[in-house]
Amino acid sequence: MSKFWSPFVKTLVPYVPGEQPKLSKLVKLNTNENPYGPSPRAIAAMQAEIGDSLRLYPDPNGERLKQAVADYYGVQPAQVFVGNGSDEVLAHAFHGLFQHGKPLLFPDVTYSFYPVYCGLYGIEYETIALDQSFQIEVADYDRPNGGIIFPNPNAPTGRVLGLSAIERLLQANTDSVVLVDEAYIDFGGESAIALVDRYPNLLVTQTLSKSRSLAGLRVGLAVGHPDLIEALERIKNSFNSYPLDRIAIAGAAAAFEDREHFQQTCQQVIASREAVVAAMTALGFEVLPSAANFIFARHPQQDAATLAASLREEGIIVRHFKLPRIDQFLRITIGTPEQNQALLDALSR
Amino acid sequence: MSKFWSPFVKTLVPYVPGEQPKLSKLVKLNTNENPYGPSPRAIAAMQAEIGDSLRLYPDPNGERLKQAVADYYGVQPAQVFVGNGSDEVLAHAFHGLFQHGKPLLFPDVTYSFYPVYCGLYGIEYETIALDQSFQIEVADYDRPNGGIIFPNPNAPTGRVLGLSAIERLLQANTDSVVLVDEAYIDFGGESAIALVDRYPNLLVTQTLSKSRSLAGLRVGLAVGHPDLIEALERIKNSFNSYPLDRIAIAGAAAAFEDREHFQQTCQQVIASREAVVAAMTALGFEVLPSAANFIFARHPQQDAATLAASLREEGIIVRHFKLPRIDQFLRITIGTPEQNQALLDALSR
Repeated sequence: MSKFWSPFVKTLVPYVPGEQPKLSKLVKLNTNENPYGPSPRAIAAMQAEIGDSLRLYPDPNGERLKQAVADYYGVQPAQVFVGNGSDEVLAHAFHGLFQHGKPLLFPDVTYSFYPVYCGLYGIEYETIALDQSFQIEVADYDRPNGGIIFPNPNAPTGRVLGLSAIERLLQANTDSVVLVDEAYIDFGGESAIALVDRYPNLLVTQTLSKSRSLAGLRVGLAVGHPDLIEALERIKNSFNSYPLDRIAIAGAAAAFEDREHFQQTCQQVIASREAVVAAMTALGFEVLPSAANFIFARHPQQDAATLAASLREEGIIVRHFKLPRIDQFLRITIGTPEQNQALLDALSR
Repeated sequence: MSKFWSPFVKTLVPYVPGEQPKLSKLVKLNTNENPYGPSPRAIAAMQAEIGDSLRLYPDPNGERLKQAVADYYGVQPAQVFVGNGSDEVLAHAFHGLFQHGKPLLFPDVTYSFYPVYCGLYGIEYETIALDQSFQIEVADYDRPNGGIIFPNPNAPTGRVLGLSAIERLLQANTDSVVLVDEAYIDFGGESAIALVDRYPNLLVTQTLSKSRSLAGLRVGLAVGHPDLIEALERIKNSFNSYPLDRIAIAGAAAAFEDREHFQQTCQQVIASREAVVAAMTALGFEVLPSAANFIFARHPQQDAATLAASLREEGIIVRHFKLPRIDQFLRITIGTPEQNQALLDALSR
């Protein structure tokens, strides 16, 4: 390390994102991107922004996007925060809502960025084991905490928690923020945004990278009580006044307005997922019930790392985590029918 | 405040960006945007990115842009960091390089985001008075510090410091990072990037919002020793893996590659500035020597706030800071010749 670094920098263990290979011929089933392109209305809205007006700063509040999200979910714009991908939104939430001198709670098998944020902001945490079926058991979170966070559906398991379980968690933790990270909610879960008017301790985050097919544009959001949104705004306005560029605001707003493209592509992904689950089960895989655009599967006789390596030799990339409890699983993104067939063909050989 | 906020959130005093009015008929000389549009090559590069590939994540390292910046300045890509506007780059630098238990030093009249970052990251600071001519006197920085930061040219004064003075500062502070924030350097200063190979304690930040006319795209960068860049990368990878979207990476790289458009538009702004300075001086204003795309001026007989208000009534927005030492100054962005003439006409009435 360098003497110029702030001391905590040497303790950071940064997040490692999934590989972004430069070879375009690969069947890329490793980072849960959408196999279908973004909304044509979003494309048109972005094209309309490209011109001389880019010399001007964007709206620092992204009001057009906040309004589109508010309209979609039937909430007020003051209940909406927008940021440069849901990772930035999550970072601000960790910083602004989880520093309480008591441990943050999250599942032992979950999005691996959570402990990284804790390192960045000096937040103590405890992991709570998923049950034997890799499901969250809300009663296990009944312990002193400075906040609770989990993805719903959970990643990388794909398992979803119903709103009644989430309500039990909210009612048992009225002094803590419960953050439900809904990156994958549109592929089979029910959004907890339906609960924000009743629970001032609920914050819900979402991304446009998955169901809205705009991973390349970097837009995320949070919905919750205006007091929670204000904490995020205060941090954002002390960090970067203009996190979303003009093109991103326009494209993301149009993506929320185009419900037809959204619903149609989500349904296609869900139908493909069910077909892949059936085919892999027939091949002897154990596949966890998935409400996401990926599946989490293991084979009782085949080592996961070996399997991932041999798929890669056939030009198919999936994600394997060398982590306790899940090192025999593969996380496989649902692709186009052609990509999925290439995967199934390779697994059948 | 809410019981859910991390305690420091209530102490934050967020930055207030210049107004972004929705009325397009206004003559907008308040946020130092470029009066000329971005490079046609940048426009074409951005248009080429808009399509189905936006479903895929961008390159988390923005290598194409790092290479374009490295080529432009004759440095290595490992000496370059890129982020979501220079405000984000500065935030990471404050977090990663200025937490040393000794005060950060910056001028008393300077970019008003610096104390905001200090609040966000709990960094103590001391302000060092500019001299009577609103210039930085480097000898005044000869005191214990955990880092030094200043804009060059300084904002909102527009005054530039030469490289020999910057070298004296670097030589006198070999245990601290000296951050030179070059948002406006291309309008009349000499970039300290020429010094990075010789001074491991030098970090230089720049933005594409001013001389490259892409305020609406949100891209900034830092150049310095690879050890300093690594601190920024570690923070970035613990905060948001993908801060730059596909369109921003492509547009920013092309903007650096198009030297002709860049040089031509910078020259036009500089020529206009000199004309405005001459005309305002003739009208009785005192105008500080400016190396930026704005001027900082006061009138011995006219109150600055009153002047700003009457300009606004004529549809011309300039920036006035209610701050010690400068509350009788106006900061006025250099616009197109037509905009500048509208300003001068209004001031002549």
